[in-house]
Amino acid sequence: MNLDDKNGTTIQVRNTTFKPRRGITNWLIGKPLQTADAPHQTIGKRIGLAVFSSDAMSSVAYGPQELMMMLAAAGIASLTYSLPLVLGIVGLLAILTISYEQTIHAYPNGGGSYIVSRDNLGVLPAQIAGAALLTDYILTVAVSISSSVAQISSAFPVLDRWKVEIAIMFIMFIMIINLRGVKESGVTFAIPTYFFVVMMYITIFFGLFRYFAGTLGIVSSPPELTILAEPQALTLFLLLKAFASGTASVTGVEAISDGITAFREPRSKNAGMTLIIMAVLLGSMLIGITFLAGKVSAIPSEHETLVSQIARTVFDGRGLMYLLTIVGTTVILVMAANTAFADFPRLGAITAKDGFLPRQLTFRGSRLVYSRGIVALAVIASLLIILFKANVSNLIPLYAIGVFLSFTLSQSGMAHRWWKSGHLKPDEEKIEAGSIVRFEKTWLLKMLINGFGAIVTFIVTIIFAVTKFADGAWVVVILLPILVYIFYSIHRHYQNLAAHLTLEKYAGLHHLGRHRVILPIASVHRGTLKALRYAESLSKDITAVHVSIDEEEAAKLQQKWETWGDGVRLVILESPYRLMIEPLLDYVSELSQNRLENEMITIVIPQFIPRRFWTNVLHMRTADTLRKVLMGQKDIVIVEVPYQVD
Amino acid sequence: MNLDDKNGTTIQVRNTTFKPRRGITNWLIGKPLQTADAPHQTIGKRIGLAVFSSDAMSSVAYGPQELMMMLAAAGIASLTYSLPLVLGIVGLLAILTISYEQTIHAYPNGGGSYIVSRDNLGVLPAQIAGAALLTDYILTVAVSISSSVAQISSAFPVLDRWKVEIAIMFIMFIMIINLRGVKESGVTFAIPTYFFVVMMYITIFFGLFRYFAGTLGIVSSPPELTILAEPQALTLFLLLKAFASGTASVTGVEAISDGITAFREPRSKNAGMTLIIMAVLLGSMLIGITFLAGKVSAIPSEHETLVSQIARTVFDGRGLMYLLTIVGTTVILVMAANTAFADFPRLGAITAKDGFLPRQLTFRGSRLVYSRGIVALAVIASLLIILFKANVSNLIPLYAIGVFLSFTLSQSGMAHRWWKSGHLKPDEEKIEAGSIVRFEKTWLLKMLINGFGAIVTFIVTIIFAVTKFADGAWVVVILLPILVYIFYSIHRHYQNLAAHLTLEKYAGLHHLGRHRVILPIASVHRGTLKALRYAESLSKDITAVHVSIDEEEAAKLQQKWETWGDGVRLVILESPYRLMIEPLLDYVSELSQNRLENEMITIVIPQFIPRRFWTNVLHMRTADTLRKVLMGQKDIVIVEVPYQVD
Repeated sequence: MNLDDKNGTTIQVRNTTFKPRRGITNWLIGKPLQTADAPHQTIGKRIGLAVFSSDAMSSVAYGPQELMMMLAAAGIASLTYSLPLVLGIVGLLAILTISYEQTIHAYPNGGGSYIVSRDNLGVLPAQIAGAALLTDYILTVAVSISSSVAQISSAFPVLDRWKVEIAIMFIMFIMIINLRGVKESGVTFAIPTYFFVVMMYITIFFGLFRYFAGTLGIVSSPPELTILAEPQALTLFLLLKAFASGTASVTGVEAISDGITAFREPRSKNAGMTLIIMAVLLGSMLIGITFLAGKVSAIPSEHETLVSQIARTVFDGRGLMYLLTIVGTTVILVMAANTAFADFPRLGAITAKDGFLPRQLTFRGSRLVYSRGIVALAVIASLLIILFKANVSNLIPLYAIGVFLSFTLSQSGMAHRWWKSGHLKPDEEKIEAGSIVRFEKTWLLKMLINGFGAIVTFIVTIIFAVTKFADGAWVVVILLPILVYIFYSIHRHYQNLAAHLTLEKYAGLHHLGRHRVILPIASVHRGTLKALRYAESLSKDITAVHVSIDEEEAAKLQQKWETWGDGVRLVILESPYRLMIEPLLDYVSELSQNRLENEMITIVIPQFIPRRFWTNVLHMRTADTLRKVLMGQKDIVIVEVPYQVD
Repeated sequence: MNLDDKNGTTIQVRNTTFKPRRGITNWLIGKPLQTADAPHQTIGKRIGLAVFSSDAMSSVAYGPQELMMMLAAAGIASLTYSLPLVLGIVGLLAILTISYEQTIHAYPNGGGSYIVSRDNLGVLPAQIAGAALLTDYILTVAVSISSSVAQISSAFPVLDRWKVEIAIMFIMFIMIINLRGVKESGVTFAIPTYFFVVMMYITIFFGLFRYFAGTLGIVSSPPELTILAEPQALTLFLLLKAFASGTASVTGVEAISDGITAFREPRSKNAGMTLIIMAVLLGSMLIGITFLAGKVSAIPSEHETLVSQIARTVFDGRGLMYLLTIVGTTVILVMAANTAFADFPRLGAITAKDGFLPRQLTFRGSRLVYSRGIVALAVIASLLIILFKANVSNLIPLYAIGVFLSFTLSQSGMAHRWWKSGHLKPDEEKIEAGSIVRFEKTWLLKMLINGFGAIVTFIVTIIFAVTKFADGAWVVVILLPILVYIFYSIHRHYQNLAAHLTLEKYAGLHHLGRHRVILPIASVHRGTLKALRYAESLSKDITAVHVSIDEEEAAKLQQKWETWGDGVRLVILESPYRLMIEPLLDYVSELSQNRLENEMITIVIPQFIPRRFWTNVLHMRTADTLRKVLMGQKDIVIVEVPYQVD
């Protein structure tokens, strides 16, 4: 290829195939993928269920348990209320499923709360939803992983003291899987998800069979009861608080609607069906587990999980079936964190594209995934795990409030959308805030469904905020406005920048007027002369400047300059207090203030490039300091002329 | 002043009076001093004794104690050998004093081991002496400060657990004093030094008086005996080992000869007298304390110092006189560290001037002291204190070996010098290795004295290395060659650099041939155009380069460039793996390899300068990365054209 091709077109496109180097990263996350490979990375219903539903389904492992722990504050007897409360939660699940099924069809390109709020309610609600969801994805990882470690230490109490370490190991594992890309994640995660579902159903059905056959016993040598609150009477407040704890079970419902684009065509149909299958599986497992927990007199405890107690009672001790159940539960919980790893970076990228988060989040890594978001999530979740000592009960009060807030915003947005679509003429389309609204015949029914969903989730949000406020929900209540403020600050920065850099109404720059070159020199040697030669190619108006802290050396330098300085003016700045940088800065800013219009000042810095890194410490590195200090100044250009010693 | 003065002389000297800013630093270390103020900062005999002898004299506080601790391995009875051993050490002190008195007169400009070795033995011995002394100054600080803290905790056992913290506080205090400059240190340190001497003499004379009057008792409730070695028979080896521990008492003798330049004229006479006074004071105190320790049956112990036991026996309990003695001892030990703070930076600067340490050490700070050396010493000594838990006995095995090695080198050097001077004709001068050797009538006597000193100190070095090897001397035996190797590596670097940069036999540079300019752009906006305008002032041969990871955006950019690009050639590098830096580097290195002779490549980088620091995280900072990677390449000049958003 002729690089000097000057005839013909000015613009030349070169197709480089520059690949990242092979190495440990490739081995960990797989070989790089081209941008053109992107569309192939989609998944069907079966793998979709595995990828997006593990969050929801795995909550069977901690939702009923946290609910019961809260009830236990009013005594063991009050645990009989857990089944009715769980039935209420399953009702909530049904409402959410119907609502979101509608959303998925209205938003085939992905209709998470952020997008639905943005399109139908405006920027502020969208940013609130975004902040709530991002917070929540982080908590999903922390809660799921903490619960998975709790399952392991139920089976192997000896691991109890390594909980935090094991949890972080799990997070790193999921991070690497996700850095490899979504398709491989799907395959990796499908088998364990289905294994969990099968194990749960075996446990539940075998348990029910033994219950009706009259051979189901109760938990032998039950663990110590954990009560999260002071002993108290069974008030409505406590019931609502227990209910709020249980809502953690339905937090994963949003996942599919946010990730529709990952599905194979027809996207909406596949995604919608997946949502319904997931809801049915989740609801039946929640009821089954809660029912059995009551029948075997399981005790909500930090030392042994509910699943472990039920399994060892149903299967008569810690045999193979018990172990398989625990393994299945542990693994699904690890997978659950994966849901967040699929959604957090995607939502981060959408928000970043809108200019509310750093633009870097929109760049995809070598495996076509948003690597920066994945790594950020892993790091923050690990910090949470360390902070909360991998304890689920400590994390729960922070968990569901964000989700239900985003549910509320999403459902309100959908209701508003149906209302608008009902007021269009048939076949009319209206573009509002970037999204297309089409006429919809059954708009009233759909509006009522989403409106009902909005009201219900709003009530749950309030219940959660009030009952859990003192336990930790206050953190989220304070955090969300701060996050929204940060999002807006970022947005303001980008907008401001764009306004200043735009070429609209731009007259073009004047050509340069006078061009003054300053050449700071510490001594006269080959490197200095190379910089001088370069300076001479820039302008005829050159001033060499030497800061002198030693008269003798300055005299020597002066003499050398007379021989080698090509007649260029030399200014010696005497520095009686032995400062090197400040007198030079003073001189430059004096020149800078007195300059003519369109006068350009260029500082040519001879820069020594050491061959070996350690030799850096043997030099004063004045050039570096000078560059850093002068860089910020207006209309001063820094030129670094390197000299190497080979 | 007319900055644009172009007629008349080319060279212009401006006397700036640029002072460092006022602030916390000024408040701590005093107002800045001009270079011209330097010569006034000298001291007389009285202050000289305080500044340079505190190291030697303070060793009374730990030397005899460490000697006795070692003897105690053969049982309490063997402590009777401590007085003879101390007498041996005082004999060693006498030999050293006579030897160094000769050195001081031969080297009025400062005759530390480093300079004497360099002038008379060559570079390698000088570097060995330098490494040994620098190591030793650090240990002086660590040992003295640890011992001072031991005195305090003898009087106030409650402070025992804060030893390390108190030690580091002391070091910081001395560092600040020294950053203020030597004259103020002198005044600050004179009173405490004399106070210590007076308190020691009062203790010794009062003790002797009571001993001869028969009223001196023995130590009441003595502390627990500390034995450093396994119980063993009183062998010659153990005696030599105890002797070696005791030699720590005479390590400070070198200090004055190294610091002659700090003395008022006549320098040599003042310094020599100061040395003799110091030796007399030190010797008498060592004998007195050891004699009394035997008479009051003092026990060498980690829990209470020897000085504390003697003082409370002589003064009948922990009254005012006891407290004054402890305070005096503590303070002199803190001052002792000051000796090292005066000498370490000075030796560092000399070594650096010879090119064996980083040149930065030769620059003096705002108060005319070698600030970098002072801070380095404080930091390293603090680390040692932390590592050795401020325990004197742990540090002693590392301590004296370096000093005695440097003593040996220095004395050998002097002996060699006298031999040379004896072989000159009267009034003949010979310049050898940069130092003037004059004829000396009494050369034979002087040679014998220094020769004897060399032999004795060499024997002590060997004794120390052998008996203390396993206890820690091995660290120094390994460290010294490593340090010498580092010194030589640094020297090689500077020599190599100078050889490559010298203008001798330099033909001058060719004028620039073709000048090719590369302008990497991420998008087309006002900042880019500013950089383009600047590039146009450099050369007509400009290529704008865009790395494309998104075809749509590349197309938009191309369109904008057609409007705004001034007809400048644009190369678009497609990057299917979404790498930003690598394709550009590849392109530049291709150009670079194919260039003509004298062709210069300049990369003009549009550099965004954020107004607020935090907004940095919102940008990819490709410019920064690019600069760092390209900087090292030969004959590629980096130009950074800043654009700010105001």
